[in-house]
Amino acid sequence: MLSDKKLSNALRFLSLDMIEAAKSGHPGIALGMADVLYILFKNHLVFNPSDPSWRLRDRLIFSAGHGSALLYSCLYLSGYKDFNIDQIKRFRSLHSNTPGHPEFSRCNNGVEATTGPLGQGIGMAVGMAMASKISGDTNKIFVICGDGCLAEGISQEAISFAGHYNLNNLVVIFDDNNITIDGSTSLSSSCDHATRFGASGWDVILSDGHNYDEIDSAITQSKGSKKPVMIAFKTIIGFGIASLEGSCKIHGAAVGPENISIARRRLMWDSEPFDIPDDILLAWRSFWLRNEKLYDASYNFTGRQQDVELNWDAVLKSVQMHSCATRVSSAEVIESLLMQSANILGGSADLSSSNNTRVSMHQDITRDHFDGNYIHYGIREHLMAAACNGILLYDGSAFKRPYCGTFLVFSDYMRPAIRLSALMGLPVIYIFTHDSIGVGEDGPTHQPVEQIASLRMMPNMLTIRPCSPLEVVCAWRAAIENTTGPTSIILSRQKIEYVNHLPISYEDFIRGAYKFYGASDAADVVICATGSEVHLAYLVAIKLEKQSLTVRVVSVPSVERFLLQPRDYVDSMIGNCRTKCVIEAGIRFGWDRILKDQDLFFGVDDFGISGKCEDVFNAFGLNLDNITQSIINSLKFTSF
Amino acid sequence: MLSDKKLSNALRFLSLDMIEAAKSGHPGIALGMADVLYILFKNHLVFNPSDPSWRLRDRLIFSAGHGSALLYSCLYLSGYKDFNIDQIKRFRSLHSNTPGHPEFSRCNNGVEATTGPLGQGIGMAVGMAMASKISGDTNKIFVICGDGCLAEGISQEAISFAGHYNLNNLVVIFDDNNITIDGSTSLSSSCDHATRFGASGWDVILSDGHNYDEIDSAITQSKGSKKPVMIAFKTIIGFGIASLEGSCKIHGAAVGPENISIARRRLMWDSEPFDIPDDILLAWRSFWLRNEKLYDASYNFTGRQQDVELNWDAVLKSVQMHSCATRVSSAEVIESLLMQSANILGGSADLSSSNNTRVSMHQDITRDHFDGNYIHYGIREHLMAAACNGILLYDGSAFKRPYCGTFLVFSDYMRPAIRLSALMGLPVIYIFTHDSIGVGEDGPTHQPVEQIASLRMMPNMLTIRPCSPLEVVCAWRAAIENTTGPTSIILSRQKIEYVNHLPISYEDFIRGAYKFYGASDAADVVICATGSEVHLAYLVAIKLEKQSLTVRVVSVPSVERFLLQPRDYVDSMIGNCRTKCVIEAGIRFGWDRILKDQDLFFGVDDFGISGKCEDVFNAFGLNLDNITQSIINSLKFTSF
Repeated sequence: MLSDKKLSNALRFLSLDMIEAAKSGHPGIALGMADVLYILFKNHLVFNPSDPSWRLRDRLIFSAGHGSALLYSCLYLSGYKDFNIDQIKRFRSLHSNTPGHPEFSRCNNGVEATTGPLGQGIGMAVGMAMASKISGDTNKIFVICGDGCLAEGISQEAISFAGHYNLNNLVVIFDDNNITIDGSTSLSSSCDHATRFGASGWDVILSDGHNYDEIDSAITQSKGSKKPVMIAFKTIIGFGIASLEGSCKIHGAAVGPENISIARRRLMWDSEPFDIPDDILLAWRSFWLRNEKLYDASYNFTGRQQDVELNWDAVLKSVQMHSCATRVSSAEVIESLLMQSANILGGSADLSSSNNTRVSMHQDITRDHFDGNYIHYGIREHLMAAACNGILLYDGSAFKRPYCGTFLVFSDYMRPAIRLSALMGLPVIYIFTHDSIGVGEDGPTHQPVEQIASLRMMPNMLTIRPCSPLEVVCAWRAAIENTTGPTSIILSRQKIEYVNHLPISYEDFIRGAYKFYGASDAADVVICATGSEVHLAYLVAIKLEKQSLTVRVVSVPSVERFLLQPRDYVDSMIGNCRTKCVIEAGIRFGWDRILKDQDLFFGVDDFGISGKCEDVFNAFGLNLDNITQSIINSLKFTSF
Repeated sequence: MLSDKKLSNALRFLSLDMIEAAKSGHPGIALGMADVLYILFKNHLVFNPSDPSWRLRDRLIFSAGHGSALLYSCLYLSGYKDFNIDQIKRFRSLHSNTPGHPEFSRCNNGVEATTGPLGQGIGMAVGMAMASKISGDTNKIFVICGDGCLAEGISQEAISFAGHYNLNNLVVIFDDNNITIDGSTSLSSSCDHATRFGASGWDVILSDGHNYDEIDSAITQSKGSKKPVMIAFKTIIGFGIASLEGSCKIHGAAVGPENISIARRRLMWDSEPFDIPDDILLAWRSFWLRNEKLYDASYNFTGRQQDVELNWDAVLKSVQMHSCATRVSSAEVIESLLMQSANILGGSADLSSSNNTRVSMHQDITRDHFDGNYIHYGIREHLMAAACNGILLYDGSAFKRPYCGTFLVFSDYMRPAIRLSALMGLPVIYIFTHDSIGVGEDGPTHQPVEQIASLRMMPNMLTIRPCSPLEVVCAWRAAIENTTGPTSIILSRQKIEYVNHLPISYEDFIRGAYKFYGASDAADVVICATGSEVHLAYLVAIKLEKQSLTVRVVSVPSVERFLLQPRDYVDSMIGNCRTKCVIEAGIRFGWDRILKDQDLFFGVDDFGISGKCEDVFNAFGLNLDNITQSIINSLKFTSF
């Protein structure tokens, strides 16, 4: 019979070998948490290494993503095929399956989420736990957190959210080692985490993290809880490397061959580096057999709704073509989509009626009823985005499509989680309303000026700012059809006058820019505009035409998409003119691929100001007279 | 004798009149918190309306910034000159002193901080409390928080930080009304805030928020506490408007004349709108007299260190000119600055040795010793930035200059607070290290690619990415001399080979770009680069020169500064060439004011990848061979 020590030390030495070979990595957590992970895999975790996509599996997330070596060791020993010994040896090297921090891949290989930025994992775990509840599944979501994760503000949002919805399928495994990078936690923290979790309605279990029986009974106890559970495992960082145990020095650097030799002698581990004795490997690879019967049964699980082909003509017909804020049209689209599909899951961070994200077809999800289609995330923007990531990670294939709303300016609060949506390729739909100085009286703290650009610049983010009810429908369609990354739909607070312009097709729209009004060929003036400024551009065009100038107004719902079009198309929109301008009530940054030196930009290159919407637009020269006159002036200095 | 009711209702009706005239604003908190604010001003707050800059005043921050009407009412009634009745009547209109949310102005007028984005105020209050402790002052910092502020993750960072440092000069006044915008707090929250604060070492006091005696005794008790204190005042949102009391409907919209009439009758308030009876005004204006003696005494306070003229030559001499990471040179600059000035206050979010922010001259601040010059912020990036704002707000004139560090990629966690630094014009110095894919093995979660651009685009932010020890000295000088807004210094993790290039002056550097190497006049190729890529540009130039091409390498430590230079200077750098390119290990976004269509950009227009630093640079084509060859190829298609 193999001892627990041998079986858990396999994790330790494999991790050490990986980190030593890479000369880079985080041995502290790998050594400190090996005993807990071993017991979890041996006796508790529901998984099948041959089918990492098995829907009813438990989820295991390393919110402390720097524990990647330990995670990969677990996956290799358990027999996940993407983590064979070659991959293990290539830890942290280019194009390996074993990068520095865990990276979610769409092929499902046992890594459930991309983690590393602290606190994101617990946020995603909360989303997964919610998704599991909504699905009526009975699995568990385990998430490994260190002091770092629990110090980040997002963890509090996650903890209080999970407590409110009583996500009792969630187990936080706290690596309670009293060490952070700078030294003892006592340098910067005195928080009693047990009491803190308790304040949000969690059960808390305290356990020694190196006593196998205690670990086992703590996890057993957690699985039976009626509340979300936090298990604080008292561990010793770097357990096994005597000279570094309990020290911050072992957190994030290879320990060197001498330290490894000493540890090998002390823990009586005498295999070659990367060599796991057959009996140990065999034992590890049989752990999952506990779940074999459960696995068979799961094949019979049905009753989940499949996504439907959406009828966009029906959506279009349901949306009023009139003067209104684009956030209002968005609500009409949502209502229509909900009539067609049960797979759309709405939510907002306490701004349901301002973001127009909640409609009559919505049924709130509550702690007692998870069969709704709307989540009140509370004033927790950051958690909201992380939870949407988790919802999509839970079962990306045919589950719910989450969207979530807040004011555009508060996208700043969510940015680390939005970045992970983009990095993981998760199609979260972000509804950002109150999209410019048009917010008016609430002033500069609530008026986004740099946020649209900050979203456009993020790799793999599709940012759309529609200008009309018709474009709002198209924006939603683009978002729904964008399945490889997040979409931000940027909507106005204020009413936009309706223009009965040329009919456009979705195909025009999705090129990112199209002729909204005016001349198709040579024009004196080309005006590019987005969102609420397209109407202004249209008025400018009318006024310029009265002066016998030819004008083309180009609506640019997505600059990035537009710049990806063939040169011919780009030229047909913004070429062939004497002068060109852009109108967008935001910063110029990012528009200079379209604007040349002599071109004009009408926008807001400073923070906004409190006042009535119209007054604020005037204060920045964003009005008919100023723009028209500036264009006329500039034409004096240009020739065709 | 005027009744408490009359005196507090003055706040209510003035606020209602303001909101009604503006047809915009937040009556809920104004009505709900009027009684608490009245008692605070009447009996407790240490202030002098004739000298809003009085250093030993208590600070009052509305973290719930939507309570601006209530704050302005307090300031007007107390006699602050910037809040006269004309300003009160212009609530939320353009260029008034009474914008939609409180806005800090550098002239000090009674508004202590710009607030509105929830949770920021409590973060800044923590910074002020820390600054007061460091100064050895004995005043109090009061901060008004609603459920929204306490739901935001940053509040937990603030609470746990304040508890750890035992900031017992801090009093959180919680407007505990059980209502958020979407409805009852029970929709999304079940957190027991009292227990939560207790878990971080706070005293908690519960009080009725409409019983004057209870309010008074709660505040009295809070002032004597040995710990930071949270007073949960149970209040009724919209108190006074019977039909809307306790409802979310009164949170954020004018209530209409009919509701006001009913409230006037019910609360027996019969003055005209905006008219405060003389006796009430007189009473309010005498509240501060409690502090008259204290005020006199404070004039005698001395012993604060004045800032010194820094000797930058001495700094320069102390920095080694050799091959090293720019973060290493930054530590040398810090060490040298600390020898000259006691007014620099360092800190990091648990990455002191990675960010190289802590040097031998540093003495940690602890809960028992506030006379140090280094703050361990813990893993609380968001709070760190907000606290630095608070430290500068506390006494901007001649106090400490805070800098704080983390990894560049985690600037995303701090963005809402960084935005407030920029909006308020506070010269926080942000030290962002690990500035590109050069981070290497830690992979895409830790490799910034869009963050430099996201900082450059923020209004009033100075972003500097130095390329050498010399430029690091200049970057620090630019940061110290930039007193009207924040500065981000972007530093490499990896070593940069030293180039003994042309001598430059600070005057060259501060223009944002200067000739680093090569041809001054006409050149075949101009290469612009920043930070760690300047050395690469230099190598490319050497190689191109061997092919008889003339090359100019332009180091661009600050693109925005550069673009503000006179046209002649800009042309002398990037004009007069056959082709031009930019090398920066980040996204292209924002560089198109410099690049023309046929120009080349060598960067990273996608998320990064885990691997050895050099391998990752190669994976993105950021190497000598690829760049040189691409430039040569492009020259085939261009003519001078």
